[in-house]
Amino acid sequence: MSTAIILVSGGLDSCVTAAIAARTHALAFLHLNYQQRTQGREYQAFCELADHFAVEQRLVVDVGFMRQIGGSSLVDSSIPVPTNPESGVPNTYVPFRNANLLGISVAWAETIGASTVWIGAHQEESAYPDCRSEFIEAYNRMVKQGTRPDTDIEVCAPLIALDKAAIIARGLDLQAPLDLTWSCYQSETLACGRCASCRMRLGGFAAHGSIDPIPYIGED
Amino acid sequence: MSTAIILVSGGLDSCVTAAIAARTHALAFLHLNYQQRTQGREYQAFCELADHFAVEQRLVVDVGFMRQIGGSSLVDSSIPVPTNPESGVPNTYVPFRNANLLGISVAWAETIGASTVWIGAHQEESAYPDCRSEFIEAYNRMVKQGTRPDTDIEVCAPLIALDKAAIIARGLDLQAPLDLTWSCYQSETLACGRCASCRMRLGGFAAHGSIDPIPYIGED
Repeated sequence: MSTAIILVSGGLDSCVTAAIAARTHALAFLHLNYQQRTQGREYQAFCELADHFAVEQRLVVDVGFMRQIGGSSLVDSSIPVPTNPESGVPNTYVPFRNANLLGISVAWAETIGASTVWIGAHQEESAYPDCRSEFIEAYNRMVKQGTRPDTDIEVCAPLIALDKAAIIARGLDLQAPLDLTWSCYQSETLACGRCASCRMRLGGFAAHGSIDPIPYIGED
Repeated sequence: MSTAIILVSGGLDSCVTAAIAARTHALAFLHLNYQQRTQGREYQAFCELADHFAVEQRLVVDVGFMRQIGGSSLVDSSIPVPTNPESGVPNTYVPFRNANLLGISVAWAETIGASTVWIGAHQEESAYPDCRSEFIEAYNRMVKQGTRPDTDIEVCAPLIALDKAAIIARGLDLQAPLDLTWSCYQSETLACGRCASCRMRLGGFAAHGSIDPIPYIGED
């Protein structure tokens, strides 16, 4: 059974991605801490997901350079997190984020001999240029050129064509532990329910016709 | 005059790359500290080169994840630095290093509005998979897909086809401050003259028929 590295933010998408990969691979979990607002809560979700999937190989990497570089409300607290959809690329876009996250993943894959790297990106977030299948395909062509000739590492993005409701459906089918995940961009105790990420998550559950298992501010 | 980000390790290649870019661009210098053996000396060279080129926009980023990931004698002190050429990919190869260095550079370019990112990679080091023109070309295609649609960032590798003697010739033509550079993988005071990087540098000066301006261990 070959090893799959899963980029696990702690959110819904990475949880479902891990559940998909777990059917055919041994799992290694990679978490990137970029000093985002909800860093502690996301790390807690990462640990609980890793325990759930009984993952032994875990790597937590600090990518503080994303805060140094700035340019996004997720890493620059002087920029407010939007609550309503914006036109164009949202201010939550972290410049070239997925390329950087995948770069670290592929380096780890090359070192530990993993065959694949999995990311929960999906095109519903297609206003982010690095969440499109064209990007993943171009990334894979670059990986072939930039790694040792005796390796054959592939980036897999199994959710790329799914919307949030379909991702939730997939997760429920696979009995993925959605209750352990965290998506809120704003809060670390109860999810705010108002930020762009909460709205997308809640919209997905509503469209799927099921109830989000995590608690939100203002619920009884 | 558009801005060029130069990846400046502090070595000969990045110095000559900066001298080439300086003819047509305003310069921004990026230095990546990956806790390599000679980190302090390389940072000194970076600062002296930035002063020489009067660069105001400077960014120094810690990429400690390279040490966490390991897999190279440059970042893992338990692996000896080779003194003789090895067959295949040398143990000084840091897995997927250039992809990671370029990823940070492109993120900074997207944030500050730089048009180009320059790297001193060259194919004489072609045993490193990420020092070949095929890699740079594939990287550029990926950048087009992974950055905001209103950007057009290009990675430039002007030394890619040159050998060390030709790089030195180019640097001397442009009056690049080769005396401020540092290449040794092993030592931080006087260059060791024996590691793979010193050998390549000294071989280049010998082939060019000129004298390396930096001091070496054992010289009078």
